[in-house]
Amino acid sequence: MSAALPRVLIIGGGFGGIAAAKALRSAPVEVTVVDRNNHHVFSPLLYQVATAALAPSDIAVPIRWLLRKQDNTRVLMGSVSDLAIDRRVATLEDGTQLPYDYVIVAAGSRHSYFGHNEWEPCAPGLKTLGDALQIRSRFLLAFERAEGCSNAADREAQQTIVIVGGGPTGVELAGILVSIVRKALWRDFRCIDTRQSRVILLEAGPRLVPAFKEELSRHALKDLQALGVDVRLNTPVTEVSPDSVVAGGVRIRAHTTFWAAGNLASPLSKHTGAPVDRGGHVRVEPDLSIPGHPEVFVIGDQATIAQGDGRPVPAVAQGAIQMGRTAAANIIRDLRRQERRPFRYFNKGDMAVIGRYRAIAQFGSVCVSGVAAWFLWLFIHIMYLAGFRNRISVLVQWGYAFATWQRGVRLIVSSSLPKND
Amino acid sequence: MSAALPRVLIIGGGFGGIAAAKALRSAPVEVTVVDRNNHHVFSPLLYQVATAALAPSDIAVPIRWLLRKQDNTRVLMGSVSDLAIDRRVATLEDGTQLPYDYVIVAAGSRHSYFGHNEWEPCAPGLKTLGDALQIRSRFLLAFERAEGCSNAADREAQQTIVIVGGGPTGVELAGILVSIVRKALWRDFRCIDTRQSRVILLEAGPRLVPAFKEELSRHALKDLQALGVDVRLNTPVTEVSPDSVVAGGVRIRAHTTFWAAGNLASPLSKHTGAPVDRGGHVRVEPDLSIPGHPEVFVIGDQATIAQGDGRPVPAVAQGAIQMGRTAAANIIRDLRRQERRPFRYFNKGDMAVIGRYRAIAQFGSVCVSGVAAWFLWLFIHIMYLAGFRNRISVLVQWGYAFATWQRGVRLIVSSSLPKND
Repeated sequence: MSAALPRVLIIGGGFGGIAAAKALRSAPVEVTVVDRNNHHVFSPLLYQVATAALAPSDIAVPIRWLLRKQDNTRVLMGSVSDLAIDRRVATLEDGTQLPYDYVIVAAGSRHSYFGHNEWEPCAPGLKTLGDALQIRSRFLLAFERAEGCSNAADREAQQTIVIVGGGPTGVELAGILVSIVRKALWRDFRCIDTRQSRVILLEAGPRLVPAFKEELSRHALKDLQALGVDVRLNTPVTEVSPDSVVAGGVRIRAHTTFWAAGNLASPLSKHTGAPVDRGGHVRVEPDLSIPGHPEVFVIGDQATIAQGDGRPVPAVAQGAIQMGRTAAANIIRDLRRQERRPFRYFNKGDMAVIGRYRAIAQFGSVCVSGVAAWFLWLFIHIMYLAGFRNRISVLVQWGYAFATWQRGVRLIVSSSLPKND
Repeated sequence: MSAALPRVLIIGGGFGGIAAAKALRSAPVEVTVVDRNNHHVFSPLLYQVATAALAPSDIAVPIRWLLRKQDNTRVLMGSVSDLAIDRRVATLEDGTQLPYDYVIVAAGSRHSYFGHNEWEPCAPGLKTLGDALQIRSRFLLAFERAEGCSNAADREAQQTIVIVGGGPTGVELAGILVSIVRKALWRDFRCIDTRQSRVILLEAGPRLVPAFKEELSRHALKDLQALGVDVRLNTPVTEVSPDSVVAGGVRIRAHTTFWAAGNLASPLSKHTGAPVDRGGHVRVEPDLSIPGHPEVFVIGDQATIAQGDGRPVPAVAQGAIQMGRTAAANIIRDLRRQERRPFRYFNKGDMAVIGRYRAIAQFGSVCVSGVAAWFLWLFIHIMYLAGFRNRISVLVQWGYAFATWQRGVRLIVSSSLPKND
């Protein structure tokens, strides 16, 4: 690589960062992708890892491997602790300095606990593979504890799972968890009947999946209730502790609570010095750069941009991918001394899966639900999964899980050094 | 389950414990299997998880799932902290008391650091899934650090992997690691050439795999050297630190050291009050019970018993399985008022795989090496893998890895709660 080429730094190897890097494949630039993890995650399927339907390696690939054939790109594993916009240098936690000519900030978001960060240890969210394994361990361990529990009230609390937030993640988690406890786990236990477990979905607003049309929200509600989920709308959470949740004034005894509500953008947003909204999202210009710094792009979950109709771009994979491509294209246009193009979001549709044979989908004004939506969901997700190996493996696992209701990957693994005892 | 039936407590869900539980399937007893993990691991393939060739779920299944059809058996996840032989009660860490009429102690072993337990954090062993993921993270992170490293000597130290112990585990780890760094990883990196990495195998004794015939030891040595492993025999380790190892008086700078030497039985051995050897193994009677306590059996890696020819039963899966079956059979014979039978080890053969198309095997006086041994190894391990799903998945993964040299599961995942930063 020649030192004379412009250096493009991409912070974050999620959908946005990877799309940007790939779009710069043939450009006369030196690309560096930095991510705190060594892998890219197909996050729409994280809930399947969390519920032990898929293994981590089915939905994740090393970023190096994704970009291995791209000679102008290097990948670094590290966490950006400082971004000095004026000096055009990012600094990693280990002190490494990464000077750049362009930077694409695509560090994503975490869940927002609405000012109650102390709730996070009691109610983990689902944004990373680590989160997914955390959730998996928690609900499996709760049943292990229930099996050894002699007190009926304690046992019921161990067998109660609360999910906070009725967006697509909450709906998918609730649907799959209730299926697992009712259909798959019961045979494994002798002292408890896992079919008696309760799965409670709490939503502060008046309907589920508010990004979908009302008709589909009603479908989702009906389907979840048919599966046995206790859905409570208009029920905001006011307290979360390790063994209970207070929602709508009612205390629910539950040892397992998951958080699927709200997004808070990476704190890197603040380093840009650009205006941010309440969720920490940077308000970007139409070309996705920040005011006064055309060399700084912010994309994906970390950015907010009004579309033509005034509606924000949704925080989904498609939004991040399209932004990544636009940011890369605008860098290439700069190098060619062409005018930059404004970002335009093309909505390919939204989907959420609710259970075996049940899903909802909308494409513009077209709504699909039930079996047709489920097969569509399956087809699209297998097609989009990054990496050939994963597709085959996912197909085999899904096919097996579907046919037998068995969850072959119900492992609780801690990778910390075990004590020698 | 009726309270009048004899209670059999099995401590440990490894090969020995599971074999014992299965052999008691139709016996008029109440079986409880307790293990600190929720899964049974096919440990002969742990090194494949450690080297990112297989995913944890390919070689492990929940113990509950393995025993789900066995109505006289319950499974508890928990760690036995005390065993009161005289009162016939085991106590779990959480205080749960497990009274028994018979107990089968099958808690296995950890690596022995020969009095230097302070070496363990620097040189993890390979006994559990957690260990395997620890090793995987370590060697992958070392290459990540090397890629960001500007000092040539530091980079070389990051790219040096030391394996202590030339038994089957050490030989298999060395063979697969050198293959990965030479053939699979190099394309992923831009700044370092992973093919320049060093893999050093240290053995204190005069030959590799001493449990095999000398002819096969020579084969293993030649094959490993052909793959590029720096094998050093008669080279005992005298110091291990995070960035170096001293062996045979020479200091080797290495940031990644793995331990594959020596076994130390679970401390539960001492609770039995029976005589133990230097490695903590209980000297059991011919019927596998301990002196004076016919209701206490000790099996697998935790036991030591002299065979007819005076040679100890090797600490391998077959030994544990056969002991588990004998212990269970002797309990059943007690109930039928029949005389107990002494344990007899039937050696089905020993195998170790060294690389692509290379393995060694011995069956009695017959030695096999090279391609034939490798295919035999592949066939036997797929056949023995617990659970149908895993067999298919392992076949797909191995086939893919073999054809492409790619390691699809090179993920570094921490399941601890990530910070919100």
